[in-house]
Amino acid sequence: MKIVPHVNLVTIIEIGAILVGAFSGFVEARRKRMDIVGVIIVAFITAFGGGTMRDILLDKRPLFWVQHQEYTILLFVVALLAAPFFKQIRHIVSERLIVVADAVGLGLFAVASVAQAQAAGMPLFIAVMMGVVTGIFGGVLRDIVCNEVPMVFRDGKPYAICAFFGCWVYIGLQYAGASEDFSLWTSAALITLMRLVSWKFDLKLTHPR
Amino acid sequence: MKIVPHVNLVTIIEIGAILVGAFSGFVEARRKRMDIVGVIIVAFITAFGGGTMRDILLDKRPLFWVQHQEYTILLFVVALLAAPFFKQIRHIVSERLIVVADAVGLGLFAVASVAQAQAAGMPLFIAVMMGVVTGIFGGVLRDIVCNEVPMVFRDGKPYAICAFFGCWVYIGLQYAGASEDFSLWTSAALITLMRLVSWKFDLKLTHPR
Amino acid sequence: MKIVPHVNLVTIIEIGAILVGAFSGFVEARRKRMDIVGVIIVAFITAFGGGTMRDILLDKRPLFWVQHQEYTILLFVVALLAAPFFKQIRHIVSERLIVVADAVGLGLFAVASVAQAQAAGMPLFIAVMMGVVTGIFGGVLRDIVCNEVPMVFRDGKPYAICAFFGCWVYIGLQYAGASEDFSLWTSAALITLMRLVSWKFDLKLTHPR
Repeated sequence: MKIVPHVNLVTIIEIGAILVGAFSGFVEARRKRMDIVGVIIVAFITAFGGGTMRDILLDKRPLFWVQHQEYTILLFVVALLAAPFFKQIRHIVSERLIVVADAVGLGLFAVASVAQAQAAGMPLFIAVMMGVVTGIFGGVLRDIVCNEVPMVFRDGKPYAICAFFGCWVYIGLQYAGASEDFSLWTSAALITLMRLVSWKFDLKLTHPR
Repeated sequence: MKIVPHVNLVTIIEIGAILVGAFSGFVEARRKRMDIVGVIIVAFITAFGGGTMRDILLDKRPLFWVQHQEYTILLFVVALLAAPFFKQIRHIVSERLIVVADAVGLGLFAVASVAQAQAAGMPLFIAVMMGVVTGIFGGVLRDIVCNEVPMVFRDGKPYAICAFFGCWVYIGLQYAGASEDFSLWTSAALITLMRLVSWKFDLKLTHPR
Repeated sequence: MKIVPHVNLVTIIEIGAILVGAFSGFVEARRKRMDIVGVIIVAFITAFGGGTMRDILLDKRPLFWVQHQEYTILLFVVALLAAPFFKQIRHIVSERLIVVADAVGLGLFAVASVAQAQAAGMPLFIAVMMGVVTGIFGGVLRDIVCNEVPMVFRDGKPYAICAFFGCWVYIGLQYAGASEDFSLWTSAALITLMRLVSWKFDLKLTHPR
């Protein structure tokens, strides 16, 4: 099933999003003083964990990172090469770059997952949940392995919520008769925008009392 | 496969058990100072985690909460509506009510899972393990996500053990020629009763020395 | 699919490796002051967790411990019998014995998993990752359930790396035209040897800076 058109652009975005996920795993694993095996595996879990969870829930095989073996190998090689230069890389890569790439990845992966879940016959609400799960569970698994309460559950910043709303917009556009392409790109862009705006203005959810 | 008769009563019990599971996730997530996204997702994990684990181990699709999309939506709506009134609800809902509803759910879900595992061709001992897993893994996953050693593994109170014995009683009744209905309700009731009695008298397992 | 010949020897090694995994789960669970239910379940998770993860990723059913129900029952009975004598057993079983049995199990399980992953059509790099996952994820899941950062990610001792190299040697031997038997035993023995040598001389990976 071809979900996304314009393969080259999407491939670049996907790889960017995977590397950003991996980087955040790398950073967290280093903070926990893990060794080289730990940082590489936590990078993998963060980059591929959400998609793997989605594929298992949908009973879809081959898994995302098996089908795209090249991403798995790329990530492994990059992690190996990057490990000795970790400190320098961390200084070069600004927080702004990370947040932007992560927001782009969140939008793309969440919406693509909704499309996949619908193609697999999931009902609407479930399909949206699958989109959100794919978007956030890489980070959730990273934090669990690193023995932390997952950041996305406690920092009060809109993240899962952006994915949740954007996924519904995707479904709404589809029902309104918009083309697959238009629905996908519009809703993915909306998620990215919502995330960036809420980050820029440091919006917070009020905690339940 | 129709496992349980008298749909209305069972539906009420199932929904009750799911809401109780969700509530315990809600409480634990709040204690960890999670935001609204965290409490809702932890509520979901607690309510549906055990059944999801069982379905994945059995390779059964659609998953429990996909097949019963209405439960998923109900839980989501209830969680959203309940979040602002969390403190008040916590005062209204007594510990006794929670324990009773949880014990009823433990019995029903454990025995229903054994039946499903047998229908899927699992050997006896494995089927019983599936019943126990379904009964306890919601709480186990809740505690892992909340960064705690799982309560059910350390409080020394009979819980998994009640499910374990009751599941064997179910199988014994089946082998003795009892009807499906009678076996199911008797063994589920037995689990609930064992759990309530051991709670009432604060029974404890001796720790291994 | 018959992966390993000489059933009797392999059966003994497998059971040994499972008991060693279970024992390490038992020890860790006791250290966390878990009750009898906790120590038994953590023993199961440690012994069967890696293989279960592999089977789920490969979508292979029945699961390893369902197919070998006898191992599951054996482990349960041994754990029940051993629980009251835990302290005595811990004194009898030397660290050396544990390390040797664990190293043998690591080699055998990692290489057998690569063979299974290849038989399931996985590409090379993925198959090797499956081998490593099977070898280490029992311990990773044990540490997650026990609320610790996984030991294999932070102690800096070669473990996953031994499995990783040995799995490539297995694949290399296969490509070089060696028989299945020879490839399997040689590479499994190599993993065991690498692990034992690095343990004996207390080798450490340098942490990424």
